[in-house]
Amino acid sequence: MAFLRDIWYPAGWASELNDQLLGRTLLDQMVLLFRDANGTARAIGGRCPHRFAPLHLGTKFGDAVECAYHGFRFDGTGRCVLVPDEEGPIPGGMRVPGYPLVERDRVLWIWFGDVDKADPALIPDLSERLSNPKYVALTGTIVIKANYELVADNLIDARHGQFLHASVLKGSGFYEAPHEITHEGHTVQINRLIKNTTAPSTYARFLPDPTIPVDWFTTTRWDPPGIFQLDNGCTPAGCDRDAGVRRPGVHLLCPETETSTHYFYASVRNYNLDDPVADEASREWQRIVFEEQDKVMLEAVQQAMGTTDFLSLHPVLLRADNTATRLRNTMRELLRKEEASRKSVAS
Amino acid sequence: MAFLRDIWYPAGWASELNDQLLGRTLLDQMVLLFRDANGTARAIGGRCPHRFAPLHLGTKFGDAVECAYHGFRFDGTGRCVLVPDEEGPIPGGMRVPGYPLVERDRVLWIWFGDVDKADPALIPDLSERLSNPKYVALTGTIVIKANYELVADNLIDARHGQFLHASVLKGSGFYEAPHEITHEGHTVQINRLIKNTTAPSTYARFLPDPTIPVDWFTTTRWDPPGIFQLDNGCTPAGCDRDAGVRRPGVHLLCPETETSTHYFYASVRNYNLDDPVADEASREWQRIVFEEQDKVMLEAVQQAMGTTDFLSLHPVLLRADNTATRLRNTMRELLRKEEASRKSVAS
Amino acid sequence: MAFLRDIWYPAGWASELNDQLLGRTLLDQMVLLFRDANGTARAIGGRCPHRFAPLHLGTKFGDAVECAYHGFRFDGTGRCVLVPDEEGPIPGGMRVPGYPLVERDRVLWIWFGDVDKADPALIPDLSERLSNPKYVALTGTIVIKANYELVADNLIDARHGQFLHASVLKGSGFYEAPHEITHEGHTVQINRLIKNTTAPSTYARFLPDPTIPVDWFTTTRWDPPGIFQLDNGCTPAGCDRDAGVRRPGVHLLCPETETSTHYFYASVRNYNLDDPVADEASREWQRIVFEEQDKVMLEAVQQAMGTTDFLSLHPVLLRADNTATRLRNTMRELLRKEEASRKSVAS
Repeated sequence: MAFLRDIWYPAGWASELNDQLLGRTLLDQMVLLFRDANGTARAIGGRCPHRFAPLHLGTKFGDAVECAYHGFRFDGTGRCVLVPDEEGPIPGGMRVPGYPLVERDRVLWIWFGDVDKADPALIPDLSERLSNPKYVALTGTIVIKANYELVADNLIDARHGQFLHASVLKGSGFYEAPHEITHEGHTVQINRLIKNTTAPSTYARFLPDPTIPVDWFTTTRWDPPGIFQLDNGCTPAGCDRDAGVRRPGVHLLCPETETSTHYFYASVRNYNLDDPVADEASREWQRIVFEEQDKVMLEAVQQAMGTTDFLSLHPVLLRADNTATRLRNTMRELLRKEEASRKSVAS
Repeated sequence: MAFLRDIWYPAGWASELNDQLLGRTLLDQMVLLFRDANGTARAIGGRCPHRFAPLHLGTKFGDAVECAYHGFRFDGTGRCVLVPDEEGPIPGGMRVPGYPLVERDRVLWIWFGDVDKADPALIPDLSERLSNPKYVALTGTIVIKANYELVADNLIDARHGQFLHASVLKGSGFYEAPHEITHEGHTVQINRLIKNTTAPSTYARFLPDPTIPVDWFTTTRWDPPGIFQLDNGCTPAGCDRDAGVRRPGVHLLCPETETSTHYFYASVRNYNLDDPVADEASREWQRIVFEEQDKVMLEAVQQAMGTTDFLSLHPVLLRADNTATRLRNTMRELLRKEEASRKSVAS
Repeated sequence: MAFLRDIWYPAGWASELNDQLLGRTLLDQMVLLFRDANGTARAIGGRCPHRFAPLHLGTKFGDAVECAYHGFRFDGTGRCVLVPDEEGPIPGGMRVPGYPLVERDRVLWIWFGDVDKADPALIPDLSERLSNPKYVALTGTIVIKANYELVADNLIDARHGQFLHASVLKGSGFYEAPHEITHEGHTVQINRLIKNTTAPSTYARFLPDPTIPVDWFTTTRWDPPGIFQLDNGCTPAGCDRDAGVRRPGVHLLCPETETSTHYFYASVRNYNLDDPVADEASREWQRIVFEEQDKVMLEAVQQAMGTTDFLSLHPVLLRADNTATRLRNTMRELLRKEEASRKSVAS
């Protein structure tokens, strides 16, 4: 299956990109991420056009990256700026692709499609969660050896929590709560809310008074191609969400290949902001839930599917799967539009 | 190459199936083995039809298995008996295949073909060897990364013993003994017998009087698809086989994939029944002969062949290979018959 | 891509072949190397024609090799000389290929093509470097998981030294020195010479007087299919090369598969002949330069290329790549000639 190209993809957390070169396969392409002399994050093709050395094995020289094999240098636009020992002009073909890259709200956003359409205004706004002094956010990155839509299925469908994550979610009964699903443009949002209930234990211990009734809420928002914004918490009944314990989350997916996915996650909280114990609890949650449970299951599913496409295997889907299906359909619709637009430009 | 389907395959030793779920790939299909609330062994498709999670990652609830991903439950017939949180009837397609499974003589027998033909009377009778108080049987299971017919070639052809297993068989000269080969139906049997000879050392030490002359015998019987029954031993010359030291063996093959095989073996003996030292000697034999020698050689052969079919590589076969060839031809004949029978039903 | 066949390939160092059997895949074929009773090196097909057991798992009996599986024996010509327990003549097809093999100047040379053309006079003469009492030669063998032409590109193009091997070559400026390239028949030779210069540190410490001006030289000679002879050193200005410190090298390539190469190297020197410290320095150089740097880079390049052919990926090549291109073109020319010659014989 082709990947949508005219859209911003998350390439990594800004904090992953330090002084070193970072090689990453995204949408089946080798990409080199690095910061130029000003610290501006750059993304260019990751394979030298001369003799195909991976550029991430090289070295940074100011604004340019030197290939480790023969010393060719490329700048942040992908232009070759130095060919050692060669007289005469640098051949026009001696370049790698340069990809629009925007660092915003702690995320590196990359664009693989038509450069003229790479409008930074189209980048999902994660500032509320990731650049907000009222929160602390703990980020992490893993690769899951499963197609990115399988990972999205997992994130949009909270039902699996009570089974796959039973060890930490302990059959709270929350998943039976009525929920509403809204669509606006390509955005899909699911809201669950139980009003005036007893605070569940995972929140209660952080509430000022764990004995008073609370409104318990979760919100999951999806935007293409794999941008998930969560909002989970408990607030004293009838109060604003910020009045209680709030754990918004961010999950960003970028296909590595057809059968593997970069999974960038952030656990965000509005309490104990400067508390290593709360940090450690959050890290433990990430390790258990994302790595030991989600990753293990999703990789087992991909293995059980082989390389056959999900829909070609005729899954037996139920009403509760409609939302996941809507995500897939939205991606297919966007892909069809993009292909049609390519063809009309070409003709 | 297609696998024969209308035949009982060994799926494992009964003792391998305890309270836990057991996932196993058989004939290229994911299968889940488990015991229901009565302890009855069951076999159903191993992949959830909803989102393709491997069912062996799940949990047993009474007679049913709960998928670890979304909590769907399937009973021992493959029928879905619970869809969490879903109103209305369970969709008809929400089921996995149920495979006839019979536990008999310590073996789990599974049927992948036409259910109407799954007659337990067709199961090879191993009771004499495996359910007989006069014997003790030590069972084991390994996977050999080689096509099951290569493993069968190895088992039917005793000549390799004096080379591949020279370290334990020590060039006894037994393989030069005259042998007779009999065929009856699809059964092939090879008998070797040396009358009135000195007991070989591996048997002598267990004989009441190692100095008296013995009749030394081996019998190998094959039935499709890969059922081997051996009978090896020494008995005082002229006496019944039970009068001496007797080591019947059982070797059961089930294809895992085109290039890997489940190999279930049992070493059986009629002496020192309750003797940990004799057990340990038997285990040591199994480890050396089956794991260090047969498995290593068979996997090297498969690697040397790549994925090319044995006959397509034009092996140079000799008279002594006729028996192995007969096994292959029998399997092909059965397969042709089965395909013809499928077509005549379809038309 | 097909491999050239009517040419001598290096199969290994003579010292690698002792009393044991040596199995090696060369040009995608399993080959067995062994010494017969006289110590003469032999090469035959590595897979038994009976049931495809790798012969290197077997045992040597005088001039023959016994297959570990069923005891068939093959002599150094590939002829089957023993079939255990079988009466009557050995079938004509029961043989493996016998390959012409010549042990010369510490190298085992093998011929896969038309046997009538296997003239030992065509073997490259490495005696000056490898059988010369004025030198000591330290040999080694590695497998590089990259196509052999990628390895040849690396060896013919000294420019990579100042980048990939910067840690040991320390930007000496030598690569900017003018060089001349000569062609004679299929031989390509590159000579670099800086006259009357200061001795570089890696040579200076072995010169009798490191302060006197030197002529600093490197020569790289290539012959098909992958025979590299180097000559590097410093000699007091105006003197013969033997008067100074001289480090000839030999690098021999033999394809293992399309994407892996046997790399046989020898580091040769004309000083401190019997000096374990100099030996150790040479071994350290080999470990760093060939294993940590060249091998790692070449395998990364092959991975970045996938299984696509180098030229199909449209590398952007420069003037300095002309020599590497000449090597490829020479190999293609030889291959075309060989194919044409085969066809004319066939018609």
